[in-house]
Amino acid sequence: MSRQGQFITFEGTEGVGKSTQLANAARTLEGLGVDFIVTREPGGTPMAEAIRELLLSPREEPVHETTELLLMFAARAQHLYNRILPALNAGKWVLCDRFTDATFAYQGGGRGVSAQRIALLETLVQGEVRPDHVILLDAPVATGMARAQKRGELDRFEQEDLEFFQRIRDVYLARAAALPSRYHVIDAARSLEEVSDGVSRVLARLFKMSASL
Amino acid sequence: MSRQGQFITFEGTEGVGKSTQLANAARTLEGLGVDFIVTREPGGTPMAEAIRELLLSPREEPVHETTELLLMFAARAQHLYNRILPALNAGKWVLCDRFTDATFAYQGGGRGVSAQRIALLETLVQGEVRPDHVILLDAPVATGMARAQKRGELDRFEQEDLEFFQRIRDVYLARAAALPSRYHVIDAARSLEEVSDGVSRVLARLFKMSASL
Ligand SMILES: Nc1ncnc2c1ncn2[C@@H]1O[C@H](COP(=O)(O)OP(=O)(O)O)[C@@H](O)[C@H]1O
Ligand SMILES: Nc1ncnc2c1ncn2[C@@H]1O[C@H](COP(=O)(O)OP(=O)(O)O)[C@@H](O)[C@H]1O
Ligand SMILES: [Mg+2]
Ligand SMILES: [Mg+2]
Repeated sequence: MSRQGQFITFEGTEGVGKSTQLANAARTLEGLGVDFIVTREPGGTPMAEAIRELLLSPREEPVHETTELLLMFAARAQHLYNRILPALNAGKWVLCDRFTDATFAYQGGGRGVSAQRIALLETLVQGEVRPDHVILLDAPVATGMARAQKRGELDRFEQEDLEFFQRIRDVYLARAAALPSRYHVIDAARSLEEVSDGVSRVLARLFKMSASL
Repeated sequence: MSRQGQFITFEGTEGVGKSTQLANAARTLEGLGVDFIVTREPGGTPMAEAIRELLLSPREEPVHETTELLLMFAARAQHLYNRILPALNAGKWVLCDRFTDATFAYQGGGRGVSAQRIALLETLVQGEVRPDHVILLDAPVATGMARAQKRGELDRFEQEDLEFFQRIRDVYLARAAALPSRYHVIDAARSLEEVSDGVSRVLARLFKMSASL
């Protein structure tokens, strides 16, 4: 019997360890013999990566919040239909660095776009598709910022202030609290080993659940 | 008394003479002493022009119709809020090469996106803003294609077939028939002099109307 792959996204503010944990998750799934792809948003296809470039490059011209919102969802449409859904339909798992939760958190909580406008676009682009599971890496904003600053030059989002990221963290936590069966909140302020351990245990559990379906 | 500028768009299938008539319209408004800007869609600001580039370049990866639709409206949001509305609010007229009618015609009629989806994004991006007047240059599709082909290399839209453009022409004509007070249909199959004459006469009439408000 063919089993639909699991769609798992990694969320959290800057520097909490999403990219690091995505690599750890990939090693865990390899160990479990799961067929999967690793991808990211905005991006994931050549055209979506070109849109990402447009979104992240610092520029003179002020970017209107509606422009930013529509570019995010344009990249998402391309990524979803050309890469994510084909992989899931082929039975693969999809590990994705950020997805629509990030839009609710950054454009909604960060920029102040209404959740209703975002939900409207979510339905327009995704129909009923939502991640099966969201790994939310949660840490105090300052912790993540301190880690991220070590990476070097800041993009258009990373240049925002602490309150901007505090609002983002709040939205993430509120969404997780509202739907605990989908969200797995991991305390990401701990050591790399502890965080990796937490993420790997969640994945092992999801694997066991999906294998017993 | 301050008078709000008129927002006038030029529409029609490939090669009917939109760019040519925009230049003619600019000369006419100069003659009437009107303060105006000339702009185009997708584009009109540096960021919106970068989105135009993404939209028009031929590429290997198939572009999902939702991606195309959202990119069009992303460019439009940027153009509207950063350039068109500031000009209108300063009392200038705005002459624009294509606007949302082109989305209903190309993405709707051409690609088959539902008019309802487009109208939803129109409201999300524009609120109540619509062009005051639309100059619809209408000619048999083959006539425009023959003119456009003289311009050289074809972009991603110009590579479509005749039926694609026939559907586009049909949508334009249906929209004009539904709201005749906003749409000015000009027979663009005629000689350059005759078409220019028709466009200039419409503008002179709009100028008289707006001056007597
Ligand atoms: N638990 C951790 N403790 C300390 N440093 C960490 C931890 N997790 C990740 N890092 C480091 O913090 C930086 C940001 O991690 P990264 O995975 O790039 O974050 P994100 O993708 O969420 O922005 C990297 O240099 C990474 O090695
Ligand atoms: N009425 C006309 N008769 C003949 N050729 C025309 C006429 N109007 C425009 N052209 C020519 O047709 C070509 C396409 O015109 P253009 O204004 O670029 O069309 P569009 O902007 O609608 O694609 C140009 O070479 C232009 O000089
Ligand atoms: Mg990262
Ligand atoms: Mg033109």
